[in-house]
Amino acid sequence: MFEFVIDATSGPARAGRLTLPHGTVETPAFLPVGTQGTVRALSPRDLQAVGAELVLANTYHLHVRPGEEVVAKLGGLHRFMAWDRPLLTDSGGFQVFSLDGFREVREDGVEFQSHVDGGRRTITPERAVEIQWTLGADIAMAFDHVAPGGADIATARDAMERTLRWLERCARRHDELKALPDARTLSPRNSPGEHLQPSVLASGDQTLWPILQGGVHLTLREAGLGRILDMGAWTGLAIGGLSVGEPKQLMYDMLEALQPRLPGELPRYLMGVGFPADLVAAVERGVDLFDCVAPTRHGRNGSAFTPDGPVNIRNAEHREDPRPLDATCDCETCTTFSRGYLRHLFVAEELLGLRLLSLHNVRFLIRLAAEMRAAIRARDFPRWADAWRRRYTQTGSA
Amino acid sequence: MFEFVIDATSGPARAGRLTLPHGTVETPAFLPVGTQGTVRALSPRDLQAVGAELVLANTYHLHVRPGEEVVAKLGGLHRFMAWDRPLLTDSGGFQVFSLDGFREVREDGVEFQSHVDGGRRTITPERAVEIQWTLGADIAMAFDHVAPGGADIATARDAMERTLRWLERCARRHDELKALPDARTLSPRNSPGEHLQPSVLASGDQTLWPILQGGVHLTLREAGLGRILDMGAWTGLAIGGLSVGEPKQLMYDMLEALQPRLPGELPRYLMGVGFPADLVAAVERGVDLFDCVAPTRHGRNGSAFTPDGPVNIRNAEHREDPRPLDATCDCETCTTFSRGYLRHLFVAEELLGLRLLSLHNVRFLIRLAAEMRAAIRARDFPRWADAWRRRYTQTGSA
Repeated sequence: MFEFVIDATSGPARAGRLTLPHGTVETPAFLPVGTQGTVRALSPRDLQAVGAELVLANTYHLHVRPGEEVVAKLGGLHRFMAWDRPLLTDSGGFQVFSLDGFREVREDGVEFQSHVDGGRRTITPERAVEIQWTLGADIAMAFDHVAPGGADIATARDAMERTLRWLERCARRHDELKALPDARTLSPRNSPGEHLQPSVLASGDQTLWPILQGGVHLTLREAGLGRILDMGAWTGLAIGGLSVGEPKQLMYDMLEALQPRLPGELPRYLMGVGFPADLVAAVERGVDLFDCVAPTRHGRNGSAFTPDGPVNIRNAEHREDPRPLDATCDCETCTTFSRGYLRHLFVAEELLGLRLLSLHNVRFLIRLAAEMRAAIRARDFPRWADAWRRRYTQTGSA
Repeated sequence: MFEFVIDATSGPARAGRLTLPHGTVETPAFLPVGTQGTVRALSPRDLQAVGAELVLANTYHLHVRPGEEVVAKLGGLHRFMAWDRPLLTDSGGFQVFSLDGFREVREDGVEFQSHVDGGRRTITPERAVEIQWTLGADIAMAFDHVAPGGADIATARDAMERTLRWLERCARRHDELKALPDARTLSPRNSPGEHLQPSVLASGDQTLWPILQGGVHLTLREAGLGRILDMGAWTGLAIGGLSVGEPKQLMYDMLEALQPRLPGELPRYLMGVGFPADLVAAVERGVDLFDCVAPTRHGRNGSAFTPDGPVNIRNAEHREDPRPLDATCDCETCTTFSRGYLRHLFVAEELLGLRLLSLHNVRFLIRLAAEMRAAIRARDFPRWADAWRRRYTQTGSA
């Protein structure tokens, strides 16, 4: 069950509702990242408490550890991580290209070195789809070839063309899996070379989204978009290969140029973007979904998002500060603890600090998305975005 | 407000209720340890969820970081750590003796090296009481001299005698602080050399408990006990200097020998004891209160308490195990996650694992205390304890 309904627009910004097998996602939405089947330092109850509606997990990481067969034997990814709401699995393409160690891209797929045991493994488009099918998320992503942020047009074209050829293979394999009779009841097979595991989902209950590549080259992106849309009737569209090292303004310009060309009826997912100002800029340019490790990674480093810009809680100025981290925030961290206590937790290297700042940062982005929805529904997004930006970039006031 | 009522006994085992300014504690009770003003990896909501009624914090640690003045400025220890239920602060005596680094015991007090900045500091009995008054816990502990587990009788006597002299000084200073007019409203003073800070408690709202030392020498313990009881009308009595390296049986024997000599009306607090089998053995010997870092420390190492003995969740046997850690447990960890997932969290070095096993282990000891209360109230403790021990020590079944 996949449905996307846009109920309001304000300029290019859109507010809507994405219905998935495991529930509904209000858009614009921020997806917390649970790389290894857990959003670092947060529990499923925490995620529920901060209002997460869709969580991302990483195919690459779960494939190398604990392995998708283990996840399947433990009831599939939803049951495994005790998250009964919508899940999306990234295909592993980005991870294979961004992690350290050996990798070799061939037309068939990518051979790489596992960051866990150093062993050589190969992921093909078909395998990426099979692994994701076995994990059983609501949304699977096509296996893509990501070019670096500064790639020239030839390199970017090569990666994009390969991504398009792989997309066809992904879609074909996904269709085959969906056509399997009663996939839910297939018994596990563990013989070497036979990796396909039963899905915990009924065969029709997973959708596959394509990823548009093309680097910072609009002509490539336009061509790629046309060919993706020619390829089938998708339920969503991801924009990959941005926020990978190129200047921010190039990303904004690309989103602005793409926006009128994107089909209006598909949810648009900008992959790997998660700084507050980037979310606002991307929603202004018509994006609906985002994921990023920034809120949890920064939280673990003691950096907190606030409406007045980032706060480093380790700073000595917070030592005796009885105020909450963010007076506008309703999260457990902000309604329970002082900045002075949070600073103490970081200075004393207490685990609770990592959790409390991660919790707040994720809540901050989810609230930001909710505020954007409200502004769009009030047909007031451009004015709201300007006011938000003015406050956020007035550095020093936090 | 301090009251201790015993409502049932079963042999030497007692069940009762300790009333403190911030609430009531059912005994026997296990106190989770929040060394630095946080029970490692757990939030106050977690502590409430697992049924903690009394939490311990460490005077030494909070004195060296962030400093008791900071805690006082942030509203006192209850407000600081957002725990509005009963708190107990250890005096720092045990920490000063057990942490690495320079220390010199003089009659006046102890000079030691801070584990945070390496600086030399001195804690006297008076300072220990002042710091605890400033922190504002419900129960403060007297500053004691702990002899090592294997100390000969001369060393143990020396430490015990000093502890008794220090107890007199602690009690005098505590009485002076309680007699201060309207201590609650004293304004903060920060001039160098003037460390006394306003308590967040009304002057009558903190009690001081003595600590009985004497090592494994019953004659010393008996003499010390008599002199403590001669010294005043206490609201509780702690047994220190056990579980510090001596054989377990010696600790059990000492508790058994002391039990008929202890005043029946005072709550008995066995400091630093927290393994499941030790709790049961000590309750059998008339102890009411316990604290220990074992549940959280072991939890962070992947070791979980279960009714069938400890389980190391890292073991490969748990890889695909869909069962809960402890099928009898009602905690979030056991009602939500499989052993396979918990193992994955530890193998993948995810922070959530540290929290989930800590949470379970604390809940395990709190449930154990509750089960003991029920068995005592059913006048059935000896039989219950034998059955519990039989199951717990049948190793291999977990």
